[in-house]
Amino acid sequence: MKFHKRLKGKIEIRPKFKLNHSNLKLAYTPGVAKVAQKIDENPKSCLDYTSKANNVAIITNGSRTIGVGNTIAEASLPVMEGKSVLFKCLAGIDAYPLCLSTKSVKEIVRTIEILAPTFSAFNIEDIESPKCFEIMEQLARKKIMAFHDDQQGAAVVVLAGLLNALKVMKKDLKKVKICLAGAGAAGYGTFKILKEMKVKNLVALDVHGIIYRWRKQDNKYFKEIARFSNPFNLRGGLEKAIKDADVFIGLTGQAGLLKSSHVSLMNERPIVFSLSNPVPEILPNEIKKVKKDHLYATGRSDLPNQINNALVFPRILRAMLDSQKNINIKLEVKIAKAVAGLVKKPNKKKILPDLFDKRLDKVILKQFQV
Amino acid sequence: MKFHKRLKGKIEIRPKFKLNHSNLKLAYTPGVAKVAQKIDENPKSCLDYTSKANNVAIITNGSRTIGVGNTIAEASLPVMEGKSVLFKCLAGIDAYPLCLSTKSVKEIVRTIEILAPTFSAFNIEDIESPKCFEIMEQLARKKIMAFHDDQQGAAVVVLAGLLNALKVMKKDLKKVKICLAGAGAAGYGTFKILKEMKVKNLVALDVHGIIYRWRKQDNKYFKEIARFSNPFNLRGGLEKAIKDADVFIGLTGQAGLLKSSHVSLMNERPIVFSLSNPVPEILPNEIKKVKKDHLYATGRSDLPNQINNALVFPRILRAMLDSQKNINIKLEVKIAKAVAGLVKKPNKKKILPDLFDKRLDKVILKQFQV
Repeated sequence: MKFHKRLKGKIEIRPKFKLNHSNLKLAYTPGVAKVAQKIDENPKSCLDYTSKANNVAIITNGSRTIGVGNTIAEASLPVMEGKSVLFKCLAGIDAYPLCLSTKSVKEIVRTIEILAPTFSAFNIEDIESPKCFEIMEQLARKKIMAFHDDQQGAAVVVLAGLLNALKVMKKDLKKVKICLAGAGAAGYGTFKILKEMKVKNLVALDVHGIIYRWRKQDNKYFKEIARFSNPFNLRGGLEKAIKDADVFIGLTGQAGLLKSSHVSLMNERPIVFSLSNPVPEILPNEIKKVKKDHLYATGRSDLPNQINNALVFPRILRAMLDSQKNINIKLEVKIAKAVAGLVKKPNKKKILPDLFDKRLDKVILKQFQV
Repeated sequence: MKFHKRLKGKIEIRPKFKLNHSNLKLAYTPGVAKVAQKIDENPKSCLDYTSKANNVAIITNGSRTIGVGNTIAEASLPVMEGKSVLFKCLAGIDAYPLCLSTKSVKEIVRTIEILAPTFSAFNIEDIESPKCFEIMEQLARKKIMAFHDDQQGAAVVVLAGLLNALKVMKKDLKKVKICLAGAGAAGYGTFKILKEMKVKNLVALDVHGIIYRWRKQDNKYFKEIARFSNPFNLRGGLEKAIKDADVFIGLTGQAGLLKSSHVSLMNERPIVFSLSNPVPEILPNEIKKVKKDHLYATGRSDLPNQINNALVFPRILRAMLDSQKNINIKLEVKIAKAVAGLVKKPNKKKILPDLFDKRLDKVILKQFQV
């Protein structure tokens, strides 16, 4: 709290040069008029003469804010400023946090469209599902470059971590049973990437329990999960879903949801990704009680084995800006594999590269260029 | 052009601290969750824990862009970046240039409302009239802090310059005839402040000629000008309006509009404010031909006697943020007088303080505090 109060916000806007009487006439009137004329004649030259080529807007409405849930847009500003810091420090991107005071999908999409002249791409953050999915679908139709961090960022880091975790625990992705708890943005994104990886036995849950075919009142995203998971069409709760599972992926936002009794139902050498932030679904001592030989990871930066989208979101946006290509599910898989490949000898305490690993930039950009 | 291309945009977003492994957990998850909770409980604490207290959005849609006129929003980005540089260098404000791709008043107002959680105030720029006036009226009704630079900024610097110019030329504001050419945002703002100053003989023109009472098809802003100016209800063009005038104020955007033949119709010791940017209505050598003893000013930073809103807009926004008070016409007058007062001995080449004059900060803030 002191850190934030002392700084009065974590970011600032700065000129790239020192203003004086002699460059004032270039930077402002009359010099600036010529640049405006140039862009008026050739709109694309905006990318050469302004900061647009490097500008990303971080868009949220605070409806899925870390530690709070559905709150006012203002409360999400400190989080978005943190994202902006990561964008700059890890990928050199100028990311503008814009917290919108509307819950309407239509208004959010229209606001993004209206803001498009200033930004090359949009990073969608912490908007409740299924609204966030609808927003992404509409932006794709309008050909606006957008990355949905909660969904796509989470999917990439979870798959990257999982590929190495399976290697460490000597398990095969095609043969394991995966229990995926949480079907919000991150859960849905993780389902999509695991479906793309042709996982055979995935059981997903939300607050109402296991997602199964013909469950009532499910929206089209839940129906999609039901159609392509849960091969035995199980019904019930966490106990049933986690029984004989090799992998638990927690993206629930429910601190302490997973008990040691649940872990005891899992297969030997379990992989537990307890990714809820700020407090995970389970802490390591609870797992040790029942399964000595396990692999554990969280989303926190103050514990080992951090699985956090921060590892990829700044660099994926960088690659999108540099390649002028939008992200898609096949690229997500390629990026996840490439990120996992950076850890030559993964072990129980090290399944992903360090956040500051410079090789990430190149390896992610490469996937967009092939 | 080279200056802009080399920089690839004149501004950037920077963290206020150096990111490392140890402050990452404060700046991002999990530390940031506590700040979000605090703001969720007490929305006003957003001003203490984020950059909001220092954030201004520069809003335009490119419909009155310098040197181009009504163009695409992208073409106004280099201008808005220049404004952002001035905001930071002259007033320490973090100003986000946001160029909107809509011409609708309703959509611009709604977008501003939606963006309000991130910004403490809005600077409205280069939007065609009368739409810009309608936007300002609606924002005032919604109690959103906003400054209309083209209108209010121009009014303040014109009045400040005029007060000192009249002193130099030994003329009395209550007795002079003023010819005001241009009735866009700057022209209307200047009319309003001169009306507040109880000027007796002001004749305003737009592209259709002198504005007079009962002129057909005028909107409510032109009707207001007609009602409170042109005491003899003159009709006609520039010749008629400028005849026997002591002061010409050009805010037309029409390069070369004013000829030496027009100036020859003016009273002796005329004051010519030729403020169109980037090219003024008249250049000094044209005036010299007919009136040796005159006072001349432009809006350009590369000529002496610059009358440019840049002198006041960053500091007025700073004062608005610091005092949490909105601007109004009475404050505009007080600020103009205070700014003029900073030049102890005005002369023909020096009617306004320098752009980098540090005393401007205090003197403008003071008007908001009295």
